[in-house]
Amino acid sequence: MNLLLDKYKRQSRYTYLMHRPPLKHCRVCGTAVVYRLPDDGDTKERAVCPACATVHYENPLNVVGTVPVWGEDGGQVLLCKRNIEPRWGKWTLPAGFMEMGETTAEGAARETDEEAGAQYEMQALFSIMNVARVGQVHLYYRARLLSTEFNPGHETIEARLFTESEIPWDEIAFKTVKETLERYFDDRRKGRFGIHVLDIA
Amino acid sequence: MNLLLDKYKRQSRYTYLMHRPPLKHCRVCGTAVVYRLPDDGDTKERAVCPACATVHYENPLNVVGTVPVWGEDGGQVLLCKRNIEPRWGKWTLPAGFMEMGETTAEGAARETDEEAGAQYEMQALFSIMNVARVGQVHLYYRARLLSTEFNPGHETIEARLFTESEIPWDEIAFKTVKETLERYFDDRRKGRFGIHVLDIA
Repeated sequence: MNLLLDKYKRQSRYTYLMHRPPLKHCRVCGTAVVYRLPDDGDTKERAVCPACATVHYENPLNVVGTVPVWGEDGGQVLLCKRNIEPRWGKWTLPAGFMEMGETTAEGAARETDEEAGAQYEMQALFSIMNVARVGQVHLYYRARLLSTEFNPGHETIEARLFTESEIPWDEIAFKTVKETLERYFDDRRKGRFGIHVLDIA
Repeated sequence: MNLLLDKYKRQSRYTYLMHRPPLKHCRVCGTAVVYRLPDDGDTKERAVCPACATVHYENPLNVVGTVPVWGEDGGQVLLCKRNIEPRWGKWTLPAGFMEMGETTAEGAARETDEEAGAQYEMQALFSIMNVARVGQVHLYYRARLLSTEFNPGHETIEARLFTESEIPWDEIAFKTVKETLERYFDDRRKGRFGIHVLDIA
């Protein structure tokens, strides 16, 4: 773990990822765009380049992560204490923005490597949550930990296991993480894991 | 139905959606970007603006749609004949890019309205398919048709119902549509609909 990421850098990355900067210029030629209906029958105003005619679309992004669990009965869950904004110092499941060229499961595994440095086996998709307000879809996979040694990267202050009763429910970074954790422990009690689809207000 | 969308417009929109245009200029200030590692500990090269320091990320997009079915036993599926590229003239399920501010189900419903003009009741999520090669995730919901009258928009030449044996399997526009249809009819035979997660090569 390290605390080298200074507050300015954490904040600027946060600003980009949570609120993409306004699209004012064409990504192809740099000319200032105008917002209008495109000529192709589209019914929404888009950023259109008056020079090269490129139409720029903005679409929701996926956040992918895991619920890494330890023990024969999966009684403990690995949480990471965030070293980045937003929610610096709060606890989260390992997760982050899906990258080009990877599947949702590959992205979830990469984020688990980066944020927890854990040894694990990927399991089934567990939760799919729409966060329409910020243009995001969050997807969590279950993962079975193979060791209790963690080697978290620079985005994590501390990574540790929690039983259900130990989880710091008031210190959880995001509603999607809280909802996923609640469903994990519910399903564990039932002895059967489903795929949970929900909308987060 | 109409065929007013000329080939140029169809093609230019296709080019954007399937292969986003290269990011050469900053969307904030229009300056030419440079590709390098950002200063925040990121391990991937990104387009960085040398003037305003904005880091530009590129992420996969979601395509959302429905499997609209008719009949007490859901024995017929609604397909749309495409009036847009790619795969002009091929058959597809109603689907398209998810937009900002909507949930996956809302996007699937909107695309069904636009492309089929059908009356239906949305049902459960049915398939989630990674198409990593093009940076996309496709999500299909089942939908129960309430009428056999369709009023497709300009992106559809014709919308009609097919039984399993009538489906033009060699004229299906996309592999994700074919995989989803095959799983729909499989599950229908079993009398139980699951959520199918798969990777498309």
